[in-house]
Amino acid sequence: MEGLTKNETIDLRRMHIGKSCALFFAHDPIKIVRAKGQYMYDEEDNEYLDCINNVCHVGHCHPHVVEAGSKQMQILNTNSRFLHDNIVKLAKRLTETLPSELSVVYFTNSGSEANDLALRLAKHHTKQSDMIVLEGAYHGHVISLIDLSTYKLDDMKDGVHNKPKSVHMVACPDIYRGKYRDDEHPKEDLAKLYADDVKELIDVIHNHGDTVSGFIAESMQSCGGQIIYPDGYLQKVFKHVHDAGGVTIMDEVQVGFGRVGNHMWSFQDQGVIPDIVTMGKPMGNGHPIAAVVTTKEISASFASCGAEYFNTYGGNPVSCAIGLAVLDVIELEKLKENALKVGNYVLVKFRQLMDKHQIIGDVRGKGLFVGLDLVKDRKTREPASEEAKYVIARLKEEHILYSRDGPHRNVLKMKPPMCFTEQNVDHLCEKLDMIFKEIKSGQVKLDANNSSSAIEEPPLKKLCTGIGIDTSVLNGTKQS
Amino acid sequence: MEGLTKNETIDLRRMHIGKSCALFFAHDPIKIVRAKGQYMYDEEDNEYLDCINNVCHVGHCHPHVVEAGSKQMQILNTNSRFLHDNIVKLAKRLTETLPSELSVVYFTNSGSEANDLALRLAKHHTKQSDMIVLEGAYHGHVISLIDLSTYKLDDMKDGVHNKPKSVHMVACPDIYRGKYRDDEHPKEDLAKLYADDVKELIDVIHNHGDTVSGFIAESMQSCGGQIIYPDGYLQKVFKHVHDAGGVTIMDEVQVGFGRVGNHMWSFQDQGVIPDIVTMGKPMGNGHPIAAVVTTKEISASFASCGAEYFNTYGGNPVSCAIGLAVLDVIELEKLKENALKVGNYVLVKFRQLMDKHQIIGDVRGKGLFVGLDLVKDRKTREPASEEAKYVIARLKEEHILYSRDGPHRNVLKMKPPMCFTEQNVDHLCEKLDMIFKEIKSGQVKLDANNSSSAIEEPPLKKLCTGIGIDTSVLNGTKQS
Repeated sequence: MEGLTKNETIDLRRMHIGKSCALFFAHDPIKIVRAKGQYMYDEEDNEYLDCINNVCHVGHCHPHVVEAGSKQMQILNTNSRFLHDNIVKLAKRLTETLPSELSVVYFTNSGSEANDLALRLAKHHTKQSDMIVLEGAYHGHVISLIDLSTYKLDDMKDGVHNKPKSVHMVACPDIYRGKYRDDEHPKEDLAKLYADDVKELIDVIHNHGDTVSGFIAESMQSCGGQIIYPDGYLQKVFKHVHDAGGVTIMDEVQVGFGRVGNHMWSFQDQGVIPDIVTMGKPMGNGHPIAAVVTTKEISASFASCGAEYFNTYGGNPVSCAIGLAVLDVIELEKLKENALKVGNYVLVKFRQLMDKHQIIGDVRGKGLFVGLDLVKDRKTREPASEEAKYVIARLKEEHILYSRDGPHRNVLKMKPPMCFTEQNVDHLCEKLDMIFKEIKSGQVKLDANNSSSAIEEPPLKKLCTGIGIDTSVLNGTKQS
Repeated sequence: MEGLTKNETIDLRRMHIGKSCALFFAHDPIKIVRAKGQYMYDEEDNEYLDCINNVCHVGHCHPHVVEAGSKQMQILNTNSRFLHDNIVKLAKRLTETLPSELSVVYFTNSGSEANDLALRLAKHHTKQSDMIVLEGAYHGHVISLIDLSTYKLDDMKDGVHNKPKSVHMVACPDIYRGKYRDDEHPKEDLAKLYADDVKELIDVIHNHGDTVSGFIAESMQSCGGQIIYPDGYLQKVFKHVHDAGGVTIMDEVQVGFGRVGNHMWSFQDQGVIPDIVTMGKPMGNGHPIAAVVTTKEISASFASCGAEYFNTYGGNPVSCAIGLAVLDVIELEKLKENALKVGNYVLVKFRQLMDKHQIIGDVRGKGLFVGLDLVKDRKTREPASEEAKYVIARLKEEHILYSRDGPHRNVLKMKPPMCFTEQNVDHLCEKLDMIFKEIKSGQVKLDANNSSSAIEEPPLKKLCTGIGIDTSVLNGTKQS
């Protein structure tokens, strides 16, 4: 089976891989055979600029990370039942990047395992199970987290997996197209308006005789369309949740490890200290490693309930060697600083594009986490979903890997490896400018079904009916 | 932080790793710094014979596996949204080891993720959620699987995590000390007796107006104390479950990949074809990889419900390269055949020990999955838990890593790397013979609380109250 042709690969995939595991550009997928830094290469050695891979965080196949993993694999790879230096070193270094309250670590293999464990910690600490989640939230693919991904559940076709009564959804603080918008309310009121919704929800829960276990959210909402919460939102929400006896969980799986630029963790940008933080994707630069970090008190509650937590691969010497190497590279190559510098450059350049192209309704971002909200009309903010689809398909033709996201799938979403450069931004903006001009010219055919000929795909509605799994990626959007 | 002393490692672990993550021999843990084949080495280069590591399946740090992983890490490690040969090659090779009906694969990072997905598949295929599980079952650490680990839930202290109504427990077909014993019933009736319990349970479920979604069990019950089901049991159970419209899930996470010796998968020994098979631990020789394999029909049901399954790291090129290399080694080094040969030798030698030592009530095993059931009295079969504890502690002193298991924690459990040799068996039996003689001499102090001075540990009851997580490992027992 050495050296399969692309068609052979496709045939074998069709035969042996579950159809529910979707490819980017499902009807004209890309076969990637190697990658380096922010570039990926197909079987014909075409180079693609990777603007979406937030997992290969310090750059694809970074030699320092590869060496650390390879070296440790040769020496020892066993479970955390035995003492080993790597697990404690990584735990120490992670906690050093966090507020001092967050000092206890549990290692897992994926963000899903981490968020699932976070729910268990919250439950055993508060002895309650009612959770508050944001509209449009996505926290992972295991059953307990699909329960929380209300937006997916609502759309589900077969009615088998339903939202438990203990899951309560609150409006996502999207000030551009959410419940309270910045064109309808004074900007300084928005944080309070959205946070008051949480307070009201807590009152409703109490009126039903229940008590809140916690609040879980990404520090910036990734799947919801690169949503950056109004300043002060999390502080106010945390107060309401704490007053009600609940705990706060910040999901940094997609947005952590310096992506935000000015901080290591995105929640730090809102000046809050969560009770539980989960981290994953970038943590191993592609290697399966994730973690939950919490306080001594919550950890003690979990231990005292009699629960033991054993994760076969979690915290093994190889995973932890890789985790340490990723932290090394972030520091040595000043990737946090790079995210800030290049991220700010992206914002400048995107705003220049916005000056030229009415289709850009909003530019928002922090560090190397940036969204372009495409609109048909800047006043009504009607989402330009078909246009967003066209952009992604055309960028692919230009060998730029990009994604779109949000409930309307009209937000162009950028979350590249952290070694992304200003030259990469210039190249991207040149192509975006060209593509926006094509759209403006009216010469291109947009698929009203949100399905273009460039990347044949199922219609939007069908894509959004997954049970908790974000299906929009089928067409080159989120969840890389 | 280079080169921590053992005490420094312990201190950092105490400070930064959740207490719920227990060490082997918690009060005198072992610091392992390297491993090779079936041997592990501590910081003073003491060699330990590893009789319990069913994860490092083809031998610790096998060079072929290490090379495959290292090589692929240098080239590409990204998600399965792109076409790649490794994922389809591994899927093809795995399905070739299975009955032809089982042709569709989903890759995950852990057995827990695999079993959780198996539950989702069953649910969406049958549109039902009632599951039948065996008494004493353990299927993983995420919330949905703790729900199934009824034996743990029953013992839980804080009452926060309770067994859902949709989970139904049935007697484990342990013919030595279960509900129907081989000293009370004709041996040929046992499979039917235990299977009839499943039928009765299905009738009860139907009488409550519910319908069965499925039956999940390990092909041989590992945590329950190395339980090997009576011949015909699974065939009869599968018939009852299928007649009721349910699906059958065989959990091969602990017992798969040739451990049973005569087959690649343990369920094959019972002549059944499950609807869903899950596999994990040995699959990556320590690297986080696992999988679910099912039929086209069940896969189609899952896809048609609108669910998309995306697992960030699942099926990545590095994990799959390692998975392929593990299969290579099993074949090239004839490890299945070795498991059969050495496993049979173990049974012969253990039965010789049984002839000499009344404490051995039962010797049971298939391939390199063997249990010694220790009893105070062969007639009553009263479990010799304190004695089992003593044996484990003494074996550790003799530099042999061993574990005990089962509800009474009196079963000495063997599941070594598959390169285990007859010489290793001889060495082990020599030490066991010596230790059983010590016990017989009456000169040793056994801790009635099941807590010996050799490996100070919390009392048994405390150990068994975990919520779904098998806590007995604290003292050098199961779940490696």
